Amino acid sequence: MTVSESAPDLGRTTWAIAEGYIPGQSHGPAPEMESHEAACMLNVGPREAHVAITIYFEDREPAGPYPVVVPPRRTLHLRFNELTDPEPIPRDTGYASVIRSDAPIVIQHTRLDSRQAENALLSTIAYPGPQ
Amino acid sequence: MTVSESAPDLGRTTWAIAEGYIPGQSHGPAPEMESHEAACMLNVGPREAHVAITIYFEDREPAGPYPVVVPPRRTLHLRFNELTDPEPIPRDTGYASVIRSDAPIVIQHTRLDSRQAENALLSTIAYPGPQ
Amino acid sequence: MTVSESAPDLGRTTWAIAEGYIPGQSHGPAPEMESHEAACMLNVGPREAHVAITIYFEDREPAGPYPVVVPPRRTLHLRFNELTDPEPIPRDTGYASVIRSDAPIVIQHTRLDSRQAENALLSTIAYPGPQ
Amino acid sequence: MTVSESAPDLGRTTWAIAEGYIPGQSHGPAPEMESHEAACMLNVGPREAHVAITIYFEDREPAGPYPVVVPPRRTLHLRFNELTDPEPIPRDTGYASVIRSDAPIVIQHTRLDSRQAENALLSTIAYPGPQ
Repeated sequence: MTVSESAPDLGRTTWAIAEGYIPGQSHGPAPEMESHEAACMLNVGPREAHVAITIYFEDREPAGPYPVVVPPRRTLHLRFNELTDPEPIPRDTGYASVIRSDAPIVIQHTRLDSRQAENALLSTIAYPGPQ
Repeated sequence: MTVSESAPDLGRTTWAIAEGYIPGQSHGPAPEMESHEAACMLNVGPREAHVAITIYFEDREPAGPYPVVVPPRRTLHLRFNELTDPEPIPRDTGYASVIRSDAPIVIQHTRLDSRQAENALLSTIAYPGPQ
Repeated sequence: MTVSESAPDLGRTTWAIAEGYIPGQSHGPAPEMESHEAACMLNVGPREAHVAITIYFEDREPAGPYPVVVPPRRTLHLRFNELTDPEPIPRDTGYASVIRSDAPIVIQHTRLDSRQAENALLSTIAYPGPQ
Repeated sequence: MTVSESAPDLGRTTWAIAEGYIPGQSHGPAPEMESHEAACMLNVGPREAHVAITIYFEDREPAGPYPVVVPPRRTLHLRFNELTDPEPIPRDTGYASVIRSDAPIVIQHTRLDSRQAENALLSTIAYPGPQ
């Protein structure tokens, strides 16, 4: 039994991350210590996962979808501050995200905040929607 | 298919956050670096979500409900220290919260603690109650 | 409808926290800034929750049960370093915990680590067992 | 009723951690303050849990399986940087992990990051797969 056959359905096709914030300032050498917000995606299945990210704001209509591909048997640590098409995500602004995929994936949300001299970390498994 | 039609039911109508604590002291420029405790709410649906927050304490009856509205297709990053009606939440006091909504929402709990010179972060998806 | 009647069943009766560690050293004024590991419990129901905590180790049989009571409509922010009966939890030692209750509760795990000059925080909703 | 009989089925047999990163540099005395990434596993059941860890990367095929045993009624705080067979996990590289067990276990993901002078912590219950 290969790795890809052993867990073809691990994960969900819809995920939500209600917290989002990209600080405008960083301390420390880039890119390792640049403030960033990431969605870590894992696709253990045998097919490419075609992912669409929608960004929600407090005072305007949603942005997106931002298309992303996660290859089979791969992880993708996507930094929200690298999303530019259809538009960059504004800094120092609260947002939230919904992530949809055509194949099951697992998503974990992580933030490195280096606005002050020492960095801070947060992480949580995202909210899994219905199958 | 519009964004609002594509995920009308993402989330739950009852959520719990068992950890709560607003430090009485902060370091750093306000409001970005002020110590705060937040409930990040996401409403991807096509209708307003009418939300009621109840605050539980260790040694007295609950406070609330605190009414909040999350517009359709919007996120709201609610800071607990900005709640004042029916009463402000006391500082340096442990509390917990239950959040009920008349439409499905997703809630993530985040805390920035800047009591000492450097900040610390925590975050977790809240506990989802029954549908 | 009173608060207690509106959510009599919120939560679970079994929870697990796989990560546990009480540092032996602290920086900062006690007790606010003392390193601690906490299980924040919320009982929104109308009855007392009688809770039993069992502590698991890497190299010996489990300790406990440690009995705790969470009153109705109350939260309890329990610090593991205050548990002394039947035995204190050793410092600088990895452990895990299982928490059982005779009424539904919600549990969130939090740690303040002040071994170095600046504090760090972590938090996550605990793992809910079967109903 | 003994502890082992009271909760024979607590947990799941498949877990995913989508976020993984072992920093190449540390500050502070080793091993307590060495940067590390850990999977805290809890086996409350009466039998040994035979665990297999598979590591997923962004740009190559998965590594593993890494075999681990969690004894009955024990926790194991496994540091990913101590895994060496079949190969060590590269530093400063994003990865993800899937953990399978032949008995139910609970897994919590924790990271201590001490690349800068002060440490940071993150933790989250891992994503539970199907039973």
